[in-house]
Amino acid sequence: MSDVLPALAHAAISKVVGVGPVGLHEPRFVGNESAYLKECLDSTYVSSVGRFVDRFEADLAAYTGSKHAVAVVNGTAALQVALRLSGVKPGEEVIVPALTFVATAAAVVYCGAIPHLADSNERTLGLDPEALRHHLEGIAELRGGRCVNRLTGRLIRALVPVHTFGHPVEIDGVGAVARDFSLELIEDAAQALGSTVGERHAGTFGRMGILSFNGNKTITTGGGGAILTDDSELAKRAKHLSTTARVPHRWNYAHDAIGYNFRLPGINAALGCAQLEQLPGFLEAKRRLFERYQSAFATVPHTSLFSEPPGCRSNYWLQALLLDEPSARHRDAILTVTNNAGLMTRPTWMLMHRLVPYRECPKMSLPVAESLERRLINLPSSPHLVM
Amino acid sequence: MSDVLPALAHAAISKVVGVGPVGLHEPRFVGNESAYLKECLDSTYVSSVGRFVDRFEADLAAYTGSKHAVAVVNGTAALQVALRLSGVKPGEEVIVPALTFVATAAAVVYCGAIPHLADSNERTLGLDPEALRHHLEGIAELRGGRCVNRLTGRLIRALVPVHTFGHPVEIDGVGAVARDFSLELIEDAAQALGSTVGERHAGTFGRMGILSFNGNKTITTGGGGAILTDDSELAKRAKHLSTTARVPHRWNYAHDAIGYNFRLPGINAALGCAQLEQLPGFLEAKRRLFERYQSAFATVPHTSLFSEPPGCRSNYWLQALLLDEPSARHRDAILTVTNNAGLMTRPTWMLMHRLVPYRECPKMSLPVAESLERRLINLPSSPHLVM
Repeated sequence: MSDVLPALAHAAISKVVGVGPVGLHEPRFVGNESAYLKECLDSTYVSSVGRFVDRFEADLAAYTGSKHAVAVVNGTAALQVALRLSGVKPGEEVIVPALTFVATAAAVVYCGAIPHLADSNERTLGLDPEALRHHLEGIAELRGGRCVNRLTGRLIRALVPVHTFGHPVEIDGVGAVARDFSLELIEDAAQALGSTVGERHAGTFGRMGILSFNGNKTITTGGGGAILTDDSELAKRAKHLSTTARVPHRWNYAHDAIGYNFRLPGINAALGCAQLEQLPGFLEAKRRLFERYQSAFATVPHTSLFSEPPGCRSNYWLQALLLDEPSARHRDAILTVTNNAGLMTRPTWMLMHRLVPYRECPKMSLPVAESLERRLINLPSSPHLVM
Repeated sequence: MSDVLPALAHAAISKVVGVGPVGLHEPRFVGNESAYLKECLDSTYVSSVGRFVDRFEADLAAYTGSKHAVAVVNGTAALQVALRLSGVKPGEEVIVPALTFVATAAAVVYCGAIPHLADSNERTLGLDPEALRHHLEGIAELRGGRCVNRLTGRLIRALVPVHTFGHPVEIDGVGAVARDFSLELIEDAAQALGSTVGERHAGTFGRMGILSFNGNKTITTGGGGAILTDDSELAKRAKHLSTTARVPHRWNYAHDAIGYNFRLPGINAALGCAQLEQLPGFLEAKRRLFERYQSAFATVPHTSLFSEPPGCRSNYWLQALLLDEPSARHRDAILTVTNNAGLMTRPTWMLMHRLVPYRECPKMSLPVAESLERRLINLPSSPHLVM
């Protein structure tokens, strides 16, 4: 049976998305995109100030229920600023999942800090709070209210869970680990716009959370991201740092900190405003797409579609097919047959500890992340496939 | 006479630009901006790949005569990548002018390096090669082919001249200092698109140069920048680093270096393509504006309009009025009366060594930069003021 698995998987995907070519995730612009871009051009405020930037931030805050949203050039920049505002300093460690897009770890390095890689669990694809607690009990201790890695002698300052493919992490458990080990909690919700835990939006549980609006995300601004926070002072500082830390003055150019040129341009914000209006429709479509895949794969042995964790509503950003462990050896054959047929699929990201720049990072044992890496295949996930 | 200087200056500006309100530099979108944005949306390639990014890079290379242009999110990011590719490492020093926008110094800090502040000259408003040579002869020495600052013990790795307000620096002299002291030459041409030295475009003299297309620049992409280089290998590495350093593969996400999420989105590139088509007209207008200011100020004592250095053609990005030294005390009164009247003027940037984050930076004596800071006022410079 398993020899035919690639053909069966291909057939199941084709049943849902047709014959292709089909990308992994493509944006769709059928709302007010053109109108808002034109309005933005006509206003001449295409750059770092203007009403579309203000509106996009207000719309994001309203949608997510966060008190503040600060729009920046991309999710990586958002995470870098959030880490710095959390007090992450050079030479400290920050816990991130081994299973994530490389930007999560890179943002830590931009702050001069060292990623400390943690395992995932099967229920969420994100950080496993129980395994992480066990790991920290083994290697860390609190000294003067701060978490110290006994093996490296370094401070562990923050914990960055990722809502993988839009599926919310076990945020209560992760939050409890952060509290018990005195770690700043920053949520990498880059993939999770539209995902909720209970009634609460992903990215609003930590002191700060971040979003991404890259071209492959559920909505896009071309490139863009945002920092979410309920803390007005942090929001103010995030905006200050992301706009070159210039001290407001009628004409003087004084800058009181090492700031960044990270403000989202108005033209990208205009696109974002139009996209955000269509988010509810995109989310419905992505859920319907999940249901169709689930139904198409119901008769394909050794496979399952990853479904939202209990108590959560996922945006189903990237659909994830899981092979059972013995069938993992067919992963590359499935990738080959589908990509050859123009149906774009891909494995999950290569785990961070396999990448040259992160090989020496401290880490816990990563059996679940390593298993998921062998077994997981992302399927074409564009909302327009069912719209 | 000098008591009436603010009123005379105000009158001269009004004679050129009318009664206002007039901004310092506003973009103008009267070409193919809307058409290209629509085309970009229709293609769905609004993000980090697509034909507008490729075209913008090709158009920039053709216009500047650089073999390669790599488009990134802004000029600051461009400089950061160029510095890193020049081999700038944490703990080394990089020479930058004290008279510059803060991003020049910030990009050095992002690399973990330390800005070393240098003086300007009156002929270009940019680095003074003779004064810099004299300074380096006093404090630096070559050890094993590398320039070492004897006072700090640190390596001085690179030299970043800025083409201030678009006026080309004395590039031959600056280049000779770089050669003689074994410094990498990276041109900060953020303000200088359209400026030339002889027949050669600013930013193409060093191993790498950078441009900016921020909202206040001669052309804008909302936010954007580019790295210019004739070195194909450097161009390839610049693109690699600015696209998360992902190793090309059909589906694997392997990253072989600490990369950045710095790629210019397609939607911003589309805007840039349309803007670049209009650059010749903008440049003509800005030159005409200079001539009108020069004529209007001809009868205002104690003032002069800064004009392009000999042998150079400047883009006249920001028009610069210079007061003579005794009249410097009227600078703030001129700023006040003009801004109160809705005519936006501003002093030059606060010098780097006055800013808290750069106070401790090594520096040479800065008499000319300090004099220019007291005496210089930027005037409304939008091309549409004379179009």
